[in-house]
Amino acid sequence: MNPHFQTHPWKVIETRFDPARVKAAESLFSIGNGIMGQRANFEETYTGESLQGSYIGGVYYPDKTRVGWWKNGYPDYYAKVLNSAFWIGVEVNINGELLDLYTAKVLDFYRELDMRRGLLIRRFRAVLPHGTEVEVEATRFVSMVRTELGVVRYRIKVLNGNAQVELRPYIDADVKNEDAHYGEKFWDLVEESATPSSHYVTMETKKTRFSVCWFSQHELVEASQEDAVTLYKYVGITSSLNHKPKDLAQAAREVATTGQKLGFDALRDEHSRAWEEKWAQCDVEIGGDDEAQQGIRFCIFHLLQTYTGKDARLNVGPKGFTGEKYGGSTYWDTEAYCIPFYLATAGGKVARSLLQYRYNQLPQAIENAQKLGFTRGAALYPMVTMNGEECHNEWEITFEEIHRNGAIAYAIYNYVRYTGDQDYLAAYGVEVLLAIARFWAQRVSRSEARQKYVMLGVTGPNEYENNVNNNWYTNYIACWCLRYAKESMEWAKEMHPWRYSNIIDKTGFDEAVEWAQWMDIAENMHFPKDDGQQIFLQQDGYMDKEQILVKDLDPDQRPLNQKWSWDRILRSCFIKQADVLQGLYFFEDDFDMDTIRRNFYFYEARTVHESSLSPCVHAILAAKIGDIDKAYELYLRTSRLDLDDYNKEVDEGLHITSMAGSWMVVVQGFAGMRVQDGQLTFAPKLPKHWTGLSFKVNFRGKIVCVNRQTEGTTV
Amino acid sequence: MNPHFQTHPWKVIETRFDPARVKAAESLFSIGNGIMGQRANFEETYTGESLQGSYIGGVYYPDKTRVGWWKNGYPDYYAKVLNSAFWIGVEVNINGELLDLYTAKVLDFYRELDMRRGLLIRRFRAVLPHGTEVEVEATRFVSMVRTELGVVRYRIKVLNGNAQVELRPYIDADVKNEDAHYGEKFWDLVEESATPSSHYVTMETKKTRFSVCWFSQHELVEASQEDAVTLYKYVGITSSLNHKPKDLAQAAREVATTGQKLGFDALRDEHSRAWEEKWAQCDVEIGGDDEAQQGIRFCIFHLLQTYTGKDARLNVGPKGFTGEKYGGSTYWDTEAYCIPFYLATAGGKVARSLLQYRYNQLPQAIENAQKLGFTRGAALYPMVTMNGEECHNEWEITFEEIHRNGAIAYAIYNYVRYTGDQDYLAAYGVEVLLAIARFWAQRVSRSEARQKYVMLGVTGPNEYENNVNNNWYTNYIACWCLRYAKESMEWAKEMHPWRYSNIIDKTGFDEAVEWAQWMDIAENMHFPKDDGQQIFLQQDGYMDKEQILVKDLDPDQRPLNQKWSWDRILRSCFIKQADVLQGLYFFEDDFDMDTIRRNFYFYEARTVHESSLSPCVHAILAAKIGDIDKAYELYLRTSRLDLDDYNKEVDEGLHITSMAGSWMVVVQGFAGMRVQDGQLTFAPKLPKHWTGLSFKVNFRGKIVCVNRQTEGTTV
Repeated sequence: MNPHFQTHPWKVIETRFDPARVKAAESLFSIGNGIMGQRANFEETYTGESLQGSYIGGVYYPDKTRVGWWKNGYPDYYAKVLNSAFWIGVEVNINGELLDLYTAKVLDFYRELDMRRGLLIRRFRAVLPHGTEVEVEATRFVSMVRTELGVVRYRIKVLNGNAQVELRPYIDADVKNEDAHYGEKFWDLVEESATPSSHYVTMETKKTRFSVCWFSQHELVEASQEDAVTLYKYVGITSSLNHKPKDLAQAAREVATTGQKLGFDALRDEHSRAWEEKWAQCDVEIGGDDEAQQGIRFCIFHLLQTYTGKDARLNVGPKGFTGEKYGGSTYWDTEAYCIPFYLATAGGKVARSLLQYRYNQLPQAIENAQKLGFTRGAALYPMVTMNGEECHNEWEITFEEIHRNGAIAYAIYNYVRYTGDQDYLAAYGVEVLLAIARFWAQRVSRSEARQKYVMLGVTGPNEYENNVNNNWYTNYIACWCLRYAKESMEWAKEMHPWRYSNIIDKTGFDEAVEWAQWMDIAENMHFPKDDGQQIFLQQDGYMDKEQILVKDLDPDQRPLNQKWSWDRILRSCFIKQADVLQGLYFFEDDFDMDTIRRNFYFYEARTVHESSLSPCVHAILAAKIGDIDKAYELYLRTSRLDLDDYNKEVDEGLHITSMAGSWMVVVQGFAGMRVQDGQLTFAPKLPKHWTGLSFKVNFRGKIVCVNRQTEGTTV
Repeated sequence: MNPHFQTHPWKVIETRFDPARVKAAESLFSIGNGIMGQRANFEETYTGESLQGSYIGGVYYPDKTRVGWWKNGYPDYYAKVLNSAFWIGVEVNINGELLDLYTAKVLDFYRELDMRRGLLIRRFRAVLPHGTEVEVEATRFVSMVRTELGVVRYRIKVLNGNAQVELRPYIDADVKNEDAHYGEKFWDLVEESATPSSHYVTMETKKTRFSVCWFSQHELVEASQEDAVTLYKYVGITSSLNHKPKDLAQAAREVATTGQKLGFDALRDEHSRAWEEKWAQCDVEIGGDDEAQQGIRFCIFHLLQTYTGKDARLNVGPKGFTGEKYGGSTYWDTEAYCIPFYLATAGGKVARSLLQYRYNQLPQAIENAQKLGFTRGAALYPMVTMNGEECHNEWEITFEEIHRNGAIAYAIYNYVRYTGDQDYLAAYGVEVLLAIARFWAQRVSRSEARQKYVMLGVTGPNEYENNVNNNWYTNYIACWCLRYAKESMEWAKEMHPWRYSNIIDKTGFDEAVEWAQWMDIAENMHFPKDDGQQIFLQQDGYMDKEQILVKDLDPDQRPLNQKWSWDRILRSCFIKQADVLQGLYFFEDDFDMDTIRRNFYFYEARTVHESSLSPCVHAILAAKIGDIDKAYELYLRTSRLDLDDYNKEVDEGLHITSMAGSWMVVVQGFAGMRVQDGQLTFAPKLPKHWTGLSFKVNFRGKIVCVNRQTEGTTV
């Protein structure tokens, strides 16, 4: 438990002001609506340490790359999510002094993130340096109903004497990214204008030429008998993703003036109802464990406000709308972790948007593979992307962490299995699977020495190994892709012959030759294993490493990624993140329980979980093999990763994608939910002290309520 | 042959002006004196494309690093040789127009680098845009006798009519590095002053606070009857490496005024004599092959002007004083390639300075190893350095290309073998060897699976493989180091007991434990091999790669490093640079001729020689096994690499360190020179069309003249 934030089933609550915690709190209290998001920066001036962050989904900038030594095949730029205009700003001037919590004396401070209703509320009492005491309440939200609207209500009251309070609402568009490689600003001003009750600014990104308009309509209400002043800001935020540039300002004005007409209360209520409807479909209730309860709701809340599936051009960045790190771009996290969550909580349509995103970017994935020397329409999806182009350049990741291609195929399988939506497969899926299978068929090579196919020079999910040969997971998912691609094509050939022949024409596919080659690879792939321990080996030569267990590591040496040099990490047997176990999780039906158990204990003992994406997979497998204590330990680590700041980095933003993994631990791990032959099945095994677990999932258009109490399970 | 430059036994000659060749010629015609150097930039204004370059050995700047993702253990900065003040400048103003070959019409152009005398001479006739025709002769050198003196004579004559010629000598200290990571300038102005006949400027580097003064004393001589004007510039260049900062200007003034007093002719003559003395000790004459002759003299000339051994703080950067690339720092090139050249051409004292350089930097090498997690005084010498600190950050090189440590030990062995100077071993060598051996002893690990020692996660000399396990060369040189260190320590213990016990105290060495451990490793190391082909394997798993030969590569695909993506290169069997063969070259006595032959043909067939350091080693081995045609082909490639611009990059600077390899091909390859039991032996095998080969080497203080003619060899 983090003593700075209170445990509460529906809220995150902060009751003390601590300048050293401001950045962390800015991340934790972030709000968004799937289209845009805003860190919990203060509305009024704050001169202490802060990471200003306001983000608009899909608006990015191709920053100049920064590499030591260029390698052929590197992308030309590094795309970044943009910090954009600070639209919440309210300058508070009291008798000529600016209100600034960094210089004021803070008497009381209370902040809550009301996750049930999607509201951020802050109250404080503070004394300014010249002695004026004020009480403030600030409430804000970005509307889930009107996705281009942000609303702030800022109420201030002077508690001692007759002070002159001046509230100046503003939009500061002169912002930059903290992570700009060369310190450059990414926005140009297009237009700016103001009246006493409104102002707007239109900015355009350099190079990418996205334009965005922020139009703020404001209203000041003075209640003179109380010495209180209330400012309402209704801010319309429109971007060229959805409007013609020339119409932007007018569109933003309409959003803002409509908001003002409806008024704060009505807007807040419709927004809160929208949130309540979401929760009605996907809440998870845990009995007897407030920390676990808060953890899972925190995860669900952030996932729901990061992605809503309304726009297939958007995706789920590892930090969502809560920070700049990782450039805000799309990683394999989406397919490996997020798809199951959105499938079950938001329904097939939302998950389908995520698949569609990759389908739409297939041409760029083919181009990306071409740059690396692949031919004939083979596709390598990028490691990191905004628009389908690769924008990460570290050779061992960019060129070698190719297992991502497998996760993208697996997500199609997962989607079809869950939704039964085979139409998607015919219309889009098969084309993606074909291109991915072609990649694998070219990426393997034939070892004359082994008389087997091998896959050289890869980085598996465990990024504490680079450029290894025959990563078991990658080889496994590659073979699976080849088989699944062929199976799906055969199915499409029979069921959708017209569409199938269209794909064959488009891709110049040669059934006789390519299918035969795919099956030859799938049947003759080399898989490293250790016969003595009867386990799969993460890669060739893994057993040549000195075998030390995590439990025998000096705690002072952890986290390894902060304490050890990179070469020492690489040479060690320690694993950052589930790798073989990731494969056993994806393909559990291919393995018997003993095999899973042996591999689980072997690898868990060597895994340091220094990736946020790791503990959830281990937790699910631990639950599967009945080690509930282990599963619970790993569940707490994943679900409260940010609330309890395990990795000492929450100030940079939240680990959004791993939150989906936390949800999986509850639903797939403790509740044992699986889809088998088009049916949901459950096999609950709860931590001993949980008095109950109930949750809702959306399965094929129906909301299924699952309720496990000590006396039994009802569905 | 490069049609732009003429073949001549003692000169490099250019007879045409071609703006597209200016940068290449600036590199090829560079001059230096071991202390400083200067690219062949024009004295007068030139507005075409040019790489201005003036360098002072040992004066560097720690530029901010530029990396994509930081890895623990990376150095904080990237040291760079500095482009420094442009001291040769002469602005030529004719009737208000600036003479600039880029805008003038060039009628005649002639430039020669007189390698025998160390002079750069340029003559041209040109017509300025307004029609004035001029004839210019410019001669310059940096004195081999007075190492702080540069001299320019600039003579101009107007050929048509009565033009007003104004010559304005200047020093432009406001320069920058083209490779500055963030475009910053690295120098601050300290002081500047001028009189009609002199001017000076003192600059100081940022951060490192080196200061340098350029003091120019000039003299204008008008020969009115000829319409000719001659400007003499005598420039004293003093640095804080050799003077107190407060004395710099005075010291530079003295150098310049003394130069002026002696006058141009006397200075040129003493300089030329110094060059002739150098040649008298180390010339190589090849009969019947002008290209080969020019190639080898070009190599010797540049090596001699890059390093003279006068200052043990200096070393041999891969580009010497001819360009910015590689930061001008010290690489393993020095030990693996340059030491044999300087031993044999400049004598033991010069080579000893290079060893001393590493001895002096032992504390930093120990610190560097500590940063990576090594303990107990283990030393890892840096991959790239200026002052002993590592300043390269690319993990696969910085942390993993550790074989450099072996080359540094081997250079000690090589030096002692050649010179018989065992005192060096006792005084300095043993201490370095001990620290290096400790590194290897910690760097290996014990594989329980193999019951052998293994070396995981290294990059061998062949940089087209990264992060491999059990690189044969690295494992071999590591074991050799362990044995040689023990042997040298045992010798020191017996012969220099006092010094030895001093070292034991200083290092806390435990003979019983450490020697036993070293021998256990040396005797139980795993060496990959292929039993079928009876060859050593470059690394574990090399035979899993698809085995394709260089001769079967499409020529359009070469050089691979420009045509293929990095991952494709890594996965291929193609070799950038001698790796197993580098080991067979160093340790040839450990292997029989058949073993060398089998490995040679196996690896030569797979080596693309895309490192300048590769063909020389292959050439020596080819000569050893009697394949003289192959040896000659590789010799031309190495010795005329820059003259013929094989790699299309000579505009960036010359490949200085590989020039030493070219010399080795002649002396060790074709002449078969070896040191055996303190004696020089020769086994000449010349290319068929060579009518003779004679050369001089300095062996233990005597100049040995070797003369191989068709009728036999005389020594």
